[in-house]
Amino acid sequence: MRDENCIFCKIISGDIPSTVVYEDDDVKAILDVNPAATGHVIVLPKYHAANIFETPDDVIAKTFAAAKKIAAGIKKAFNCDGVNILQNNGEAAGQTVFHLHVHVIPRFDGDKDDIAIRWKQGDAPENGAEIAKKISDNM
Amino acid sequence: MRDENCIFCKIISGDIPSTVVYEDDDVKAILDVNPAATGHVIVLPKYHAANIFETPDDVIAKTFAAAKKIAAGIKKAFNCDGVNILQNNGEAAGQTVFHLHVHVIPRFDGDKDDIAIRWKQGDAPENGAEIAKKISDNM
Repeated sequence: MRDENCIFCKIISGDIPSTVVYEDDDVKAILDVNPAATGHVIVLPKYHAANIFETPDDVIAKTFAAAKKIAAGIKKAFNCDGVNILQNNGEAAGQTVFHLHVHVIPRFDGDKDDIAIRWKQGDAPENGAEIAKKISDNM
Repeated sequence: MRDENCIFCKIISGDIPSTVVYEDDDVKAILDVNPAATGHVIVLPKYHAANIFETPDDVIAKTFAAAKKIAAGIKKAFNCDGVNILQNNGEAAGQTVFHLHVHVIPRFDGDKDDIAIRWKQGDAPENGAEIAKKISDNM
């Protein structure tokens, strides 16, 4: 499944060049062209879907399993202290290309604010049971 | 597989209370006790492993498939504009509990810096091919 207007589909087909880290029947993993850090990789499933909501479970399974494999390679290659696995859905979440992709980002002790993956921690809500029910009722 | 000293294993067993959003044979999903936003959920595989490197592929598949299901529920429940799926490995990456877990975070247009999931984008490296080879050689 391919979308003719999708830049990641064109990268997968090779019509647009990229720096390939790993490829198999289901995914292509490339260097992020504007990396957060040296070794920042994105994993692209070959199946085109805009986001996680539209992606079949077997594609999710293969894509995140590939992310694990790449994370291990990054850890070994750069001896990093940590790795973030991040998948953004929607512009509000930071998604800029609407073909699902998984960021694999090497992290180091002492990383400065150039890489911000954190949030202000709220208090546990008093109406937690209600919030949980609202989600489960909508699943 | 359970670790007697792991707080998430105790949450999974029910020895420590939590607000449960979803549970099946493989995962338990609960409200994050210090949420980034209302509806912030973490998905805990019942299989104990500290991080993605130690987690079998089938557990990864089930955990991220559950995250998808929960993301869809959150989107419908709160009509959010986006959702981040985030899995941190190592303190340097923001991991604080060493039982693999996946954050599912609702996002809204106009979210302020209270939720920072972004980075300063670097330039494409000149030695990209070398970096990619270093990773693939270590996979």
